[in-house]
Amino acid sequence: MTSQSMSDGESRLARGRRALAEIDGEAGHAVVAALADIAPDFATYLFEFPFGDIYSRPGLTLRDREIATIAALTAMGHAAPQLRVHIEAGLNVGLTREEITEIIMQMAVYAGFPAALNGLFAAKEVFGRRFPPAQDGVSAGSPASASPPPGAT
Amino acid sequence: MTSQSMSDGESRLARGRRALAEIDGEAGHAVVAALADIAPDFATYLFEFPFGDIYSRPGLTLRDREIATIAALTAMGHAAPQLRVHIEAGLNVGLTREEITEIIMQMAVYAGFPAALNGLFAAKEVFGRRFPPAQDGVSAGSPASASPPPGAT
Amino acid sequence: MTSQSMSDGESRLARGRRALAEIDGEAGHAVVAALADIAPDFATYLFEFPFGDIYSRPGLTLRDREIATIAALTAMGHAAPQLRVHIEAGLNVGLTREEITEIIMQMAVYAGFPAALNGLFAAKEVFGRRFPPAQDGVSAGSPASASPPPGAT
Amino acid sequence: MTSQSMSDGESRLARGRRALAEIDGEAGHAVVAALADIAPDFATYLFEFPFGDIYSRPGLTLRDREIATIAALTAMGHAAPQLRVHIEAGLNVGLTREEITEIIMQMAVYAGFPAALNGLFAAKEVFGRRFPPAQDGVSAGSPASASPPPGAT
Amino acid sequence: MTSQSMSDGESRLARGRRALAEIDGEAGHAVVAALADIAPDFATYLFEFPFGDIYSRPGLTLRDREIATIAALTAMGHAAPQLRVHIEAGLNVGLTREEITEIIMQMAVYAGFPAALNGLFAAKEVFGRRFPPAQDGVSAGSPASASPPPGAT
Amino acid sequence: MTSQSMSDGESRLARGRRALAEIDGEAGHAVVAALADIAPDFATYLFEFPFGDIYSRPGLTLRDREIATIAALTAMGHAAPQLRVHIEAGLNVGLTREEITEIIMQMAVYAGFPAALNGLFAAKEVFGRRFPPAQDGVSAGSPASASPPPGAT
Repeated sequence: MTSQSMSDGESRLARGRRALAEIDGEAGHAVVAALADIAPDFATYLFEFPFGDIYSRPGLTLRDREIATIAALTAMGHAAPQLRVHIEAGLNVGLTREEITEIIMQMAVYAGFPAALNGLFAAKEVFGRRFPPAQDGVSAGSPASASPPPGAT
Repeated sequence: MTSQSMSDGESRLARGRRALAEIDGEAGHAVVAALADIAPDFATYLFEFPFGDIYSRPGLTLRDREIATIAALTAMGHAAPQLRVHIEAGLNVGLTREEITEIIMQMAVYAGFPAALNGLFAAKEVFGRRFPPAQDGVSAGSPASASPPPGAT
Repeated sequence: MTSQSMSDGESRLARGRRALAEIDGEAGHAVVAALADIAPDFATYLFEFPFGDIYSRPGLTLRDREIATIAALTAMGHAAPQLRVHIEAGLNVGLTREEITEIIMQMAVYAGFPAALNGLFAAKEVFGRRFPPAQDGVSAGSPASASPPPGAT
Repeated sequence: MTSQSMSDGESRLARGRRALAEIDGEAGHAVVAALADIAPDFATYLFEFPFGDIYSRPGLTLRDREIATIAALTAMGHAAPQLRVHIEAGLNVGLTREEITEIIMQMAVYAGFPAALNGLFAAKEVFGRRFPPAQDGVSAGSPASASPPPGAT
Repeated sequence: MTSQSMSDGESRLARGRRALAEIDGEAGHAVVAALADIAPDFATYLFEFPFGDIYSRPGLTLRDREIATIAALTAMGHAAPQLRVHIEAGLNVGLTREEITEIIMQMAVYAGFPAALNGLFAAKEVFGRRFPPAQDGVSAGSPASASPPPGAT
Repeated sequence: MTSQSMSDGESRLARGRRALAEIDGEAGHAVVAALADIAPDFATYLFEFPFGDIYSRPGLTLRDREIATIAALTAMGHAAPQLRVHIEAGLNVGLTREEITEIIMQMAVYAGFPAALNGLFAAKEVFGRRFPPAQDGVSAGSPASASPPPGAT
């Protein structure tokens, strides 16, 4: 057994809280807050297992881990809220908009065009919120398209 | 409607109507009503096969059957409207809020955290509608959290 | 746009544009327009591979191809926007409302009742938009149900 | 067997048996026989609902129904035994090998290349069994490839 | 936070080992052993989260938890080895063969007939191994079928 | 083969062939060879779209692309042959055994423990074939486990 299961559950929780804050930022806090009155223990598990155990492991960078997560959530297709959180998380840990777009496009090969299209529109929504046109007129992959046609989606 | 619902088919239909009313209550009627102008025969099949045939079999209690259905719909992840109907159905046939929450949390093991999270938020919505805070300030698993933070999800 | 769409790629692109316009009509254009500022190359791929390559093959009629697509999207369950586009596409290439309803109902056998129900409600939405009650009071499979109960779904 | 298969249920059962024999042939009988000692009632449901109810409906030809089923089973990806049965069923109701191959190839667009590849290899297996090289050296789409390289899959 | 996150990781591991042994028996040990040279930490997580955390929670009996797991694994369709382990686990914690058969049959409603059929054949295999015909000629639901036809599946 | 592979299509094809050879090695050739007598055009599409178009794009390294593909195929769960090919491909483009194991373990969070377990056993099989114990007694993550217990899986 490796070192990560030596210290107590408390430190898994603390480590998970730190990792969740680093990776998911505000979106992670919102999910945990929303669990408070339905399943507070599940928030604990969410801190402990995915973030305290898995994301805290040394064998892969957080950037690489988010490539894996964005790919999987796009391909699975039924986890739109989590995909949006992890597109934002990808930006938080160093992926560029272009790289995230590439990952999602690639999923057309493995999970079909609908899954990739839905992923791209999720990315468009997250990028639009994070990089509003006024402050940043350059959208991913297409410098000239600062003004999207209204209602196009 | 075709000939198959005439004699014993009629009793499958009647048995299915009774079972659907007992299990799904109003939500079941709404689904059947919504089918009336697009596929009325499908409403008949819905009465007959799932409810007249399967849910009417003696080998398993309705409580056990709803454990199975809530688990499956949470794990499959693409059937949110039906999951909400069956969370309500689970309450109708004797599952407590705590038990439903346990079933959904367990799905994190088999279908991942996103499927479980989406299931928990579906349960939160159903519980909130069925047990409004004013009449019942005690929410599942967390006595102190009667007032959920607005917009947390 | 990259170099691959220059000479014969151009003709795949042109062929794909023609096929997309014939099959998906306005809905196809809206998807392509929505891709412009996030992943314009993906719009090119969408023209080229699905429409320029696959739908343009001679071995199957467009009507048969839309039967396959409507069935698959209903069964997969996580591609609601694409299912609506292809229910409309099915009508564009000669499928009747009754035939589309039959295809979707059949999916209850292979993907379960929730997938079929969600598909039927998608069809109801598309049919209602394309054949508004005022001009066409006859809805699929049920001549008498021109006025659906409000909020039934 | 329970009471529901007595009078008109009997005719659903009879109709379903006839439809199953026509569509699935020997493969259908094998499935039903294999159910005999684990869940004989399920064999009855299999006759009655998919075949007695759905496949017996007049709104769609059996050829069209098999296009839908082959597409859905290929796209879903986890039902290999049933896909093989329905590739054979497609041949039974008039689809050619070329048409079945087209349907499966198209699924690359909607469910990704792995699902389509696995479907094509299932078709290769069924076609090889049904049209052995000695009697029919012409395989689908490639006249020259009568002798496949051993172990290539 | 509830009491289960108080003691240290060591006790989660110990509690998980005990729960895994009680529920999965030999099959659980085989999975853990097989992980030893590829991902030993994953065996630790398997003890700790599913078994030390989730299955050890007091809110649901092990029998109820196995109903949920068998239903989910049947419906998801891509986890055949785990389904066989949990059909056996279901027997270990008090489900009868008839009850397990009912749960799996019910999945035809939610995930389609292929998923249910594949689940029933998995159950047939597990029951046949656990209750060999010589010692127990009565198979689930069909007293007369002690000798299944060879090669029927 | 149709006309689309003539001039620039030819270069997509050539580029795809080169990329497939670099990424998938022998396994890619085997898949293409197996398609020859069932759907030779599909082999062309496989060269052109996934490899000639997507994997040849400059926005992401091949190492990053294989992280995404291994994650997605593990999470989807129904593409075991393709997952094995891409575990090998990951090794070809620079991922270590430890990194591949990390990616697959992480999928327990998003797609559940069964999908991750099946992915780990696929990796064990590929690693065992590629790094036979005699030449390389050190298996991923566990130096002491050179001799796996027979039949443990």
